[in-house]
Amino acid sequence: MRPRVVIVGAGFGGLRAARALRDAPAEVVLLDRHNYHLFQPLLYQVATAGLEPSQIAQPVRAILRGQANLTFRMTEVDGIDRLGRIVKTSSGPLSYDFLILASGSVTNFLGLPGVAQDGFSLKDLNEAVAIRNHVLRCFEAAAHEGSAERRSQLLAFAVAGGGPTGVEMAGALVELRRVLLARDYPGLDAREVRVILLEASDRLLPAMPRRLAAAGADRLVRKGVEVRLGAVVESYSDEVIRLRSGEQIPAASLIWAAGAHASTLASDLAAAPGPQGRVPVLPTLRLPDSPEVFVIGDAAYLEAAGRGLPMMAPVAMQMAETAAENIRRALAGKEPIPFRYRDPGSLATIGRNAAVAFIRGISFTGFPAWVVWLVVHLIQLIGFRNRLLVLINWAWDYFLYDRAVRLITPD
Amino acid sequence: MRPRVVIVGAGFGGLRAARALRDAPAEVVLLDRHNYHLFQPLLYQVATAGLEPSQIAQPVRAILRGQANLTFRMTEVDGIDRLGRIVKTSSGPLSYDFLILASGSVTNFLGLPGVAQDGFSLKDLNEAVAIRNHVLRCFEAAAHEGSAERRSQLLAFAVAGGGPTGVEMAGALVELRRVLLARDYPGLDAREVRVILLEASDRLLPAMPRRLAAAGADRLVRKGVEVRLGAVVESYSDEVIRLRSGEQIPAASLIWAAGAHASTLASDLAAAPGPQGRVPVLPTLRLPDSPEVFVIGDAAYLEAAGRGLPMMAPVAMQMAETAAENIRRALAGKEPIPFRYRDPGSLATIGRNAAVAFIRGISFTGFPAWVVWLVVHLIQLIGFRNRLLVLINWAWDYFLYDRAVRLITPD
Repeated sequence: MRPRVVIVGAGFGGLRAARALRDAPAEVVLLDRHNYHLFQPLLYQVATAGLEPSQIAQPVRAILRGQANLTFRMTEVDGIDRLGRIVKTSSGPLSYDFLILASGSVTNFLGLPGVAQDGFSLKDLNEAVAIRNHVLRCFEAAAHEGSAERRSQLLAFAVAGGGPTGVEMAGALVELRRVLLARDYPGLDAREVRVILLEASDRLLPAMPRRLAAAGADRLVRKGVEVRLGAVVESYSDEVIRLRSGEQIPAASLIWAAGAHASTLASDLAAAPGPQGRVPVLPTLRLPDSPEVFVIGDAAYLEAAGRGLPMMAPVAMQMAETAAENIRRALAGKEPIPFRYRDPGSLATIGRNAAVAFIRGISFTGFPAWVVWLVVHLIQLIGFRNRLLVLINWAWDYFLYDRAVRLITPD
Repeated sequence: MRPRVVIVGAGFGGLRAARALRDAPAEVVLLDRHNYHLFQPLLYQVATAGLEPSQIAQPVRAILRGQANLTFRMTEVDGIDRLGRIVKTSSGPLSYDFLILASGSVTNFLGLPGVAQDGFSLKDLNEAVAIRNHVLRCFEAAAHEGSAERRSQLLAFAVAGGGPTGVEMAGALVELRRVLLARDYPGLDAREVRVILLEASDRLLPAMPRRLAAAGADRLVRKGVEVRLGAVVESYSDEVIRLRSGEQIPAASLIWAAGAHASTLASDLAAAPGPQGRVPVLPTLRLPDSPEVFVIGDAAYLEAAGRGLPMMAPVAMQMAETAAENIRRALAGKEPIPFRYRDPGSLATIGRNAAVAFIRGISFTGFPAWVVWLVVHLIQLIGFRNRLLVLINWAWDYFLYDRAVRLITPD
């Protein structure tokens, strides 16, 4: 019998690992709780009524069709028995010879009172659809709300976290405001609608050079976002955000993009979890005491140049290649290779015609960066039909100042 | 102050009535619990992974944008106070001078044990998405189910009701089977997958001539549907359907398309409700004792040529025109006109290249009927973008034997 490689998670890391093992002399079993791979970088566009879920999610079976040595199973993974080399799933136990844990991360609400309960997070399709429904419901409610005070609370949209997700979300919300007010709610006053970006540190976009991040912040402000640096959220209740400064911000919507930690599945695996609950791995991406277990992506903690590698898709995909390579090497009786990260740069869009990019040491902003962002994201989307439909939706919305998916569906 | 016309429901009837009152010297308020108008005839394609919800649902505000005398309000209507001329809504009372009740119908489970609880109905977007999720989940579960008995139960899809909805649903399911087995589940055996259409009477498609309906049934059978006439469902529990004949059919899915009755809002309005809980109206579509109240569409009961008019979109839309005309006449002090139904014919598709049509007394089937069906439905869809995206999805699925939306989203 051929050795069995079990991969937990069909995100950027797990999917890439499965593909990289296409020709390996092994049976590959890929597990995920969903039947689709999600293109998370565009999740904020689902949350702001620009794209449909199916346009950024592709069935795993469709992606890996034709890979003879692969089986996909939609199941929930409950735990890992490292001694017995068994993955415990909701549809029974599954033994492995090699394990690649690519279970990703979940939103970290930092234990702040009310935030996990009443705030929104943006990690999965359902959460994105919930944000879309909620934001549109706030506009509907405001349209026939008599009290000006309540109306401005309904129309205050706060985003916590100044990383790429928070920046892109705030930019998309402020554009949605323009589209909705002009087209669907001509009776509402633009000055009543606020988009507030709360960042605890003194700058946005920590992965970018400070000057570039400042340009991005400036652009957000010109688009109408209230960028609040040094704003530390302490609690959220009764639709009021309380900051450490004592300030209170009435806002019916709080989208939390201010932190992530590794899934509990990963944390449980580490003797001593690293920062954000991630599992410290050897440079070969193996666990120190279990050479047959690899951890990659957001779930793994590895330092490069003295800093922990960021929780980003490129890290996960590159780690997947290395983990797959090391499994092939182990099967061939060869020594493993260490992981080496090649930074592909970073990009964040700030809405119509505006983005910031930092690629190979070069910073650029504005329209050129925006075009690069569009092309990169379109190419990375899986499935030609998705690319076509997303392109049509983007072009339509761009030229007609529209949004495709302004539906409020029951939660 | 101009008189106020309140329209309850933004389905085919309510929407058409709102548009027909565009130039009336009245303030029009349109109410619906959703913010979108749903193109119900294509709901079965959402349920079978062919289309996305947003492609068959258009925001009401987008449709009626630019109609100066209209206000839309997304709200739940709890009741009607005819004496006080007030509509009671979840966002407060609303007085009217004229009322058009276009509140449609809901699924009638006929009080059969277990059917309402464990069966699916196909009336709204969420129900369609729930069917899609469930059907795909059954395939996922069957893919790693060891017991042949359980597997065939998971892969038995029953549809109750031989009207157009049941016929189209069964046809789409049997095609989905082919697509899924070939593309995503090559390990499953086609003979284990069953699609069963249960009809209590001795024929399908009651609105069509008997010969045409028989041709439709024949076509379904050739596509692989088990058409069971005279099959009366008595109960559904533990994923087993019990028929009056005593026969038991193990099936993890039962889609109930075997009956509808008027919404309770309508039934409450009638002194003595008509068949299916519908409100008997005068030929002018008014209530006998409240000339300012009109009831149209599925909610209304009116006979033509000795038979109750069917619960169909064309009836609702034509009634909407007459009700709007009669309100304009009342405002001008003129006598109302009676409703006269012009039958536009009926169409049902049976999947790829096959449909049955009965238009102006002419029956036709096969490819020509299928093309007519495609064109008619594309034209009737609201929104150019929707038409474009639906056309792309249809063409793609047709030529590549694919389905666009094979996503299982958490319920």
